[in-house]
Amino acid sequence: MVKNQIYDTIIIGSGPAGMTAAIYAARYKLKTLIISKDVGGVANLAHKVENWPGIVSIPGTELMQNFKKHVTVLGVELVEDKAEKIINKFEVVTASNKRFKSKTLIFALGTVRRKLNIPGEDKFTGKGVSYCATCDAPFFKDKTVCVVGGRNSATMAASLLSQYAKKIYIIYRKDKLRADPVLIEQVEKNPKIEMIYKSEVAKILGTKFVEKVILKDGKEIPIEGVFVEIGGIPSTGLAKELQVKLDNGSYIIVDDKMQTNIPGIFAAGDITNTPLAQIVTACSDGAKAAYSAFQYLKK
Amino acid sequence: MVKNQIYDTIIIGSGPAGMTAAIYAARYKLKTLIISKDVGGVANLAHKVENWPGIVSIPGTELMQNFKKHVTVLGVELVEDKAEKIINKFEVVTASNKRFKSKTLIFALGTVRRKLNIPGEDKFTGKGVSYCATCDAPFFKDKTVCVVGGRNSATMAASLLSQYAKKIYIIYRKDKLRADPVLIEQVEKNPKIEMIYKSEVAKILGTKFVEKVILKDGKEIPIEGVFVEIGGIPSTGLAKELQVKLDNGSYIIVDDKMQTNIPGIFAAGDITNTPLAQIVTACSDGAKAAYSAFQYLKK
Repeated sequence: MVKNQIYDTIIIGSGPAGMTAAIYAARYKLKTLIISKDVGGVANLAHKVENWPGIVSIPGTELMQNFKKHVTVLGVELVEDKAEKIINKFEVVTASNKRFKSKTLIFALGTVRRKLNIPGEDKFTGKGVSYCATCDAPFFKDKTVCVVGGRNSATMAASLLSQYAKKIYIIYRKDKLRADPVLIEQVEKNPKIEMIYKSEVAKILGTKFVEKVILKDGKEIPIEGVFVEIGGIPSTGLAKELQVKLDNGSYIIVDDKMQTNIPGIFAAGDITNTPLAQIVTACSDGAKAAYSAFQYLKK
Repeated sequence: MVKNQIYDTIIIGSGPAGMTAAIYAARYKLKTLIISKDVGGVANLAHKVENWPGIVSIPGTELMQNFKKHVTVLGVELVEDKAEKIINKFEVVTASNKRFKSKTLIFALGTVRRKLNIPGEDKFTGKGVSYCATCDAPFFKDKTVCVVGGRNSATMAASLLSQYAKKIYIIYRKDKLRADPVLIEQVEKNPKIEMIYKSEVAKILGTKFVEKVILKDGKEIPIEGVFVEIGGIPSTGLAKELQVKLDNGSYIIVDDKMQTNIPGIFAAGDITNTPLAQIVTACSDGAKAAYSAFQYLKK
């Protein structure tokens, strides 16, 4: 870092969206910095990724290492620190009190998946506990699993899982599902799916992988997969402070070019109001955000 | 193919958009067929791809072979034939008069880049002749190149190339550029860029790679790269017959879920009105189109 240097763009976050934004920004010859405490982001949590086009199966950590190598080869700087505050227009202050100035910002901080916060959940993440049925359903062929939650995402996860698993419990703390009627109907008609209403998972147990869950009433269910579908929390604290417009779920509202309401601020990936949150969609967003930053700087 | 079988989705086209749509559709357990005469699409033309996240450099053909392997492993059927006609709702008739019924369609036919149609152009495609500056500019470090065209894409290509090449000619048949003022200003202020107005390239010559161009007035320019930036023609003939809504440039109008105006018909990649046409953005579109087809079929 050269003193008083001003970056063309600072990318906050280093998951698929941030990494791809960096690849594109570097190729547009923008002076680019990534600030991220957790290099690779939540994609690292995926035991196996089997929907990244062109690679039949790869551990999430390995895929993200490939991304990291790519940005490094292109000369992108990477500061492993937490962006804590943004002052002026635009100076990022990190947790360890370093400061970096930039002409544009790209928010790519993703979401923190809402967790159950129960014993066993962290231990078995990627080892039976999953936060993405679209990503992981195919790993549970002929197995018994549960989905925790009762809204659209939970019912869709259960329907998708029924294509692979032999038995799916939906465990929901309310007395009926709160999903679109058509989704509820599918679940109710599906002989593989069994509802457990007014119940919550208290503990997840296993040795190397998940083996069973224990409900709050003490009931044990032998199970090999726990799909937690109770929503996500976008990491939009910093964006909010800058008055970047958020939707009702606190996701950043972007247009089709990944522009926010604030000129010079762009966003990409799970942190945005995207209709589908996948690695490949996040990458696409990142490419578009970098292109928009490039166009913004040229004007 | 089983007689009278009805596919859940038929994907027309097998570039990055079509391949990724197939990967996602297969994982959503949709009975999926790709119909495509040219497996891999125009991505095959890229001498090297260096903006596919996670791979520093790969020939376009190799990347597309990886995609093909991925869809094959997932059990997607692939018919190497041209979709010629679509009858009823929806039955695809191919050039060799085979017929395939489907509940949904995903158009992923891409564009045919508008060509100069001059000697040497086809021979040197991927060997100095390029149709994508964003993709290929970094290969022309310290080289002399020309951009053919005079609209926004041509001026942006020239500006980007000036970050790498030592000299850029813009060869345009009109007497002034027809781009946004800000883009024209950049080009005019750039000492590396020289305009050649009222001129056209007649021939591209070389041995293994491009070595020079000959203009219509007989002038020779030694050059190592020719960037053709005179627009593209989306392959939307079939879509148009089905009354799928197109924009002024004949691209398919899609919403953020890749839905067209016709229920059950989706589109992805360069064939759509996307703001940025890249391999990774096309893949993202493909994933979203498959997701939307899956949701459509569940209803």
